[in-house]
Amino acid sequence: MSLRRIEDTRELLCALLRAFHGRGWVSGTGGGICGPAGDDELWIAPTGVHKELVEPGDFFRMTIGTGEILDAPNGLQPSECAPIFRAICAATGARSVVHSHALSAVLAADLHNGNILRIAGFEMLKGLGLSNRETLEIPVVSNTEREHELTGAVERALADPRFARTPVIMVADHGAYLWGADPMEAKKHAEVLHWLFDGRIARHRYGG
Amino acid sequence: MSLRRIEDTRELLCALLRAFHGRGWVSGTGGGICGPAGDDELWIAPTGVHKELVEPGDFFRMTIGTGEILDAPNGLQPSECAPIFRAICAATGARSVVHSHALSAVLAADLHNGNILRIAGFEMLKGLGLSNRETLEIPVVSNTEREHELTGAVERALADPRFARTPVIMVADHGAYLWGADPMEAKKHAEVLHWLFDGRIARHRYGG
Amino acid sequence: MSLRRIEDTRELLCALLRAFHGRGWVSGTGGGICGPAGDDELWIAPTGVHKELVEPGDFFRMTIGTGEILDAPNGLQPSECAPIFRAICAATGARSVVHSHALSAVLAADLHNGNILRIAGFEMLKGLGLSNRETLEIPVVSNTEREHELTGAVERALADPRFARTPVIMVADHGAYLWGADPMEAKKHAEVLHWLFDGRIARHRYGG
Amino acid sequence: MSLRRIEDTRELLCALLRAFHGRGWVSGTGGGICGPAGDDELWIAPTGVHKELVEPGDFFRMTIGTGEILDAPNGLQPSECAPIFRAICAATGARSVVHSHALSAVLAADLHNGNILRIAGFEMLKGLGLSNRETLEIPVVSNTEREHELTGAVERALADPRFARTPVIMVADHGAYLWGADPMEAKKHAEVLHWLFDGRIARHRYGG
Repeated sequence: MSLRRIEDTRELLCALLRAFHGRGWVSGTGGGICGPAGDDELWIAPTGVHKELVEPGDFFRMTIGTGEILDAPNGLQPSECAPIFRAICAATGARSVVHSHALSAVLAADLHNGNILRIAGFEMLKGLGLSNRETLEIPVVSNTEREHELTGAVERALADPRFARTPVIMVADHGAYLWGADPMEAKKHAEVLHWLFDGRIARHRYGG
Repeated sequence: MSLRRIEDTRELLCALLRAFHGRGWVSGTGGGICGPAGDDELWIAPTGVHKELVEPGDFFRMTIGTGEILDAPNGLQPSECAPIFRAICAATGARSVVHSHALSAVLAADLHNGNILRIAGFEMLKGLGLSNRETLEIPVVSNTEREHELTGAVERALADPRFARTPVIMVADHGAYLWGADPMEAKKHAEVLHWLFDGRIARHRYGG
Repeated sequence: MSLRRIEDTRELLCALLRAFHGRGWVSGTGGGICGPAGDDELWIAPTGVHKELVEPGDFFRMTIGTGEILDAPNGLQPSECAPIFRAICAATGARSVVHSHALSAVLAADLHNGNILRIAGFEMLKGLGLSNRETLEIPVVSNTEREHELTGAVERALADPRFARTPVIMVADHGAYLWGADPMEAKKHAEVLHWLFDGRIARHRYGG
Repeated sequence: MSLRRIEDTRELLCALLRAFHGRGWVSGTGGGICGPAGDDELWIAPTGVHKELVEPGDFFRMTIGTGEILDAPNGLQPSECAPIFRAICAATGARSVVHSHALSAVLAADLHNGNILRIAGFEMLKGLGLSNRETLEIPVVSNTEREHELTGAVERALADPRFARTPVIMVADHGAYLWGADPMEAKKHAEVLHWLFDGRIARHRYGG
């Protein structure tokens, strides 16, 4: 079914996870997604499961402000990303966050300079609301042993005015958190950003 | 359904957009397509939407000569490519134009010399009507901040006799406009050209 | 439907063309295929059409010995490969030939030495009936302006005892002709050979 | 049908083979898989067949301890991997083994040092039960002319305490044997490991 015809948020998130798995962004149970459940609530995918096989009944409903779990499916745990998803939604107003484990995200983050990955010289930047003359500056935080330990560094990046228009935070050796106002904008940003990661890597190989 | 069995032009354009999205040529709402609506009219896809989700009712009907909009779907804007699509159709007689945002188009355009990308030494050139002994010369125009500002440079390339047999114009950092007499010839040219872009890049990496 | 459940040869050839198109081996109307129509006859796909859209009624029936056309669909021309397909079947006993326009075939052929592409050091060689200690030697003939002009060079390669166990002939800048006793063996050889082309290219890039 | 809804082990193994074939891990009849048939028994796929076309009735039932064949489909031979599959299950307690012929496995194994391939610096290591600060050490055994001749080297690697937590053994020029407690854990490990192979190769190309 066309994504445009899916009315239920959790069904849409499942369809996006299947598409993202086909592209290698959420392999081997890695990665994650959340979407809006209400004004101050999110549907959050579970951890430790094959993401392309997630079903609508598997999502946790969680408040953005306090992290209280309102609905919990039997036998599952919410994504370890939950505190990061909440921090991003609270700081930016986004209501859908994608956590990508794409190899291209890791390889692009390898090209950071002083913990900022810079990407310029691509029309595709317009897909993030920038002009094609601007430089996208993406914060790259260091990886930690446990995912929830990333939350502090993510919050500092969210508060940094240099990144106020950047809908993505990268984690070295790990992947990317990227977001949009809703799941379809998050999908758009996911496609644009992974294209830009590939482009940045390819031009680095050209020597650029 | 087989593309051969699709009789409605707009349905065919939608099927092509889905196929092109699967190949990474129209990611993140980028790219576009048009096809024939009548002798002097085009069906033009809308801007700012996920191209693989475009439906037949989303197309604008526009005259080639004046750009007058004859049919407009509610709540959408025609592709910013519309003036370029019209210029190509007016100058060449083509009735279907594809605007590709493929990374391979950008990386191949990086290899231009004096604003011409030259591709030779491939049997695949025959798919554009050339002999395999000829050199394909593609004009590469500089990118502009707004897409409609490209129209003048595109018109100059279309009028340049060196490119009279070249069914594609590239835009640096941006992508390619390519065309055919009808949507199926545009599809053929799209497949041939993206193959040639990949081949040109790969031989450059070989040192060729 | 599973390829194992397809009983009609022409339906099987159509299904293989769709699969090969998805892999980029027959893009932009390029490439071709034939399969057995009888003891001394072949079904041969038409030229100049989108290969993934070929239907059972589009095939030509042709004798291997004389090239006489026994059945011809309206409005189509048989593949320009027909003389080469017949030469391969006559010389080797094969009854299914695949003509690949894969970029990997062209890039691997670039690595020939004295018009022989050598591939060794891969378990995958067993898929061609070789031991993994043997070296696959593939003849690489020069491209010609017209496809039928290749026939002489192909016949000489077929008669060369060095290549008696090699089920593939490559054409520089162009692609590969590969074969099997029947369409399913040709499919197996196609998968093995394109894997080996990719492997040969990748190890060349490693400096091997 | 979602893999989560498949209750029959052999149907699940067939669905996994189709998915793995689509990724290039079991091309050209290569590769293999087994899954649990009972406490001390395995379902083992046949040799010499197109792996994506394997059907539930094609599997052999074999005891892990003695290799006795309890059920045999007509006209087929069990995978030559059978002794290796049995050795892995006996030594590790795994009940599902995947034999991958992916090119990425061969190219990653090329990067071994003293017959150990080391992979570190990736969050994705967590998918194998390691911390992201640990180094994955994978034994790389030399290829042999016949697959069953690998069994001794595989058994030595399985008995080596350095590799006690490593759910994969690689064979130079050939591929990888990887495993999990059941088919879905083997799928997870397959996705994680092929991601890591790609990552290791890409960072080698960066000069890392």
